[in-house]
Amino acid sequence: MNKTILLAHRPVGTPTLKDFKTAETEMPVAKDGEILLKTLYISVDPYIRGRMNDAKSYVPPFELNKPIQSGIIAEVVDSKNPAFTKGDSVSGIIDWKEYQVSSGKGLIKVDKAAAPLSAYLGVLGMTGLTAYMGLVEIAQPKAGETLVVSGAAGAVGSIAGQIGKILGCTVVGITGSDEKAALIKSKFKFDEAINYKTAPNLNSAIKQACPKGIDIYFDNVGGEISDAVLYNINKHARISVCGAISLYNSTMVPIGPRIQPIIVSKSAMMRGFIISDFYEKFPQGIKQLATWLKEGKLTYTETIVEGFDNAPQAFLDLFEGKNEGKMVVKV
Amino acid sequence: MNKTILLAHRPVGTPTLKDFKTAETEMPVAKDGEILLKTLYISVDPYIRGRMNDAKSYVPPFELNKPIQSGIIAEVVDSKNPAFTKGDSVSGIIDWKEYQVSSGKGLIKVDKAAAPLSAYLGVLGMTGLTAYMGLVEIAQPKAGETLVVSGAAGAVGSIAGQIGKILGCTVVGITGSDEKAALIKSKFKFDEAINYKTAPNLNSAIKQACPKGIDIYFDNVGGEISDAVLYNINKHARISVCGAISLYNSTMVPIGPRIQPIIVSKSAMMRGFIISDFYEKFPQGIKQLATWLKEGKLTYTETIVEGFDNAPQAFLDLFEGKNEGKMVVKV
Repeated sequence: MNKTILLAHRPVGTPTLKDFKTAETEMPVAKDGEILLKTLYISVDPYIRGRMNDAKSYVPPFELNKPIQSGIIAEVVDSKNPAFTKGDSVSGIIDWKEYQVSSGKGLIKVDKAAAPLSAYLGVLGMTGLTAYMGLVEIAQPKAGETLVVSGAAGAVGSIAGQIGKILGCTVVGITGSDEKAALIKSKFKFDEAINYKTAPNLNSAIKQACPKGIDIYFDNVGGEISDAVLYNINKHARISVCGAISLYNSTMVPIGPRIQPIIVSKSAMMRGFIISDFYEKFPQGIKQLATWLKEGKLTYTETIVEGFDNAPQAFLDLFEGKNEGKMVVKV
Repeated sequence: MNKTILLAHRPVGTPTLKDFKTAETEMPVAKDGEILLKTLYISVDPYIRGRMNDAKSYVPPFELNKPIQSGIIAEVVDSKNPAFTKGDSVSGIIDWKEYQVSSGKGLIKVDKAAAPLSAYLGVLGMTGLTAYMGLVEIAQPKAGETLVVSGAAGAVGSIAGQIGKILGCTVVGITGSDEKAALIKSKFKFDEAINYKTAPNLNSAIKQACPKGIDIYFDNVGGEISDAVLYNINKHARISVCGAISLYNSTMVPIGPRIQPIIVSKSAMMRGFIISDFYEKFPQGIKQLATWLKEGKLTYTETIVEGFDNAPQAFLDLFEGKNEGKMVVKV
């Protein structure tokens, strides 16, 4: 039999396991022009939360009682499509199914000899590209500038910080535990790390870690952490808003200090993005990331959860910050 | 005797007449290399409020018991500097004095034959340049896009809206009275006008006036008006934040809906600025504005208050919205 994970309910606020359900169907068979895919790795990402709502957004919502989708690495186990060979590894946004057939459209072949397959969901995939585009294309760092990254031990944040170091910035990470704070300094070579949960005054902690002020803020989290960062930006600061995980489960409009007076008085620029905005620049980004990886300038962590059935729980754990780096489910 | 207007107190919240005082001094005399200036027109502008605070900002604060400064048009009534001739008209950021001497540094000669002198404080001065840079350089309008301007009947807003029309945008203005709403449609050729004080639901009024959504927001005001605009922006919207007059007199950190979730979900860009950020582009901007003015594509209103002594009250009236277009004091 072949398992599928479906959207059972649209969550209100924080999702729970009850919002998912598992169905069993017969094993699919590839027809002419199709390939049969066996799921190897499933990416769980905060943006999936948005697709669980019935709201118009940049990607259409999941349908009730239809499969959840995300980035997946799969093996071609049968091919009736001349573009694919049995044994190929592919990457694409496909259904949370153990096995599925595909026309091959939207799938990209990945090279399992060049990097571990899970890396194509992380540092060489959407998370690496998100860090690269948000930092390099939007914020345009210059050597000597101070970069602050929130969600710094996360999949995107840890890569954004390392790219900042490669480009000559002083890099300060904000994260939510002493372990993560230690990790971003030891493994990812951030200059300073702040644990926002234990800092007595986050504003002061940031001021102390950034004596020259903040030129670039790579914002993964939103909310009060971002408020404290914004109080410390320099003239002509750039703020790349990649996500707002602190706000995704909010059922009310989140309220906070208005930022326009800071944006005006600092002549600052804030830009939000999703990675598909930079679609034409993906090849260039992947090439650069792969080069840095090969040169040993870039490293990454991943949290690998074993078992197809554990994908929903792995997704929920993202909102508890239980992951270090990219969260991936190994089937 | 020669009058000077000084800063008497640093205001807390909304300034009052008591924060200013007038002093009389002897008539100054130009020494070698100097010129004697007679003030003709004084510009009053919201940003002056910021300089009344004792806070580090992009321009230094006024000192207590020292003259207020702003953009002034003056006549050279005596010259011991070969670069200036008696009878020249000049523009510069100088003291609120009836007469003052100057080395000439920072002064620009203006041509009284080409435009009325007060225009050099408005459409051909800082306000025109603010509209031009905020719209053209920051927001980069494309024909067919929808532009919303807040503070639309004001000195900057009325010019921003007209530039939008010249560049082929659909332009919607938000303003605070039916008279101003009528004015921006009749005189400045805005496509639609909204009176935010009488609209039963500002969000709905904006939605109705902008059926294709909002591509560009030229924000002069901040606060709840801007909240309502942001709920209606399109993907890849650009928000040019020129000022936040609604917040300048606030004694507490103003609170409102967090905007980062909208900025991310719309891949929007928000950029604040002050006009000096674009210093190198002033000649190009003034040239373009003068051309449009000459071609009859650009028109302007000004509120001229008579009498040197009335400058403080004219400044206070800005926060009550008593001006139509550029507020200028004629000495």
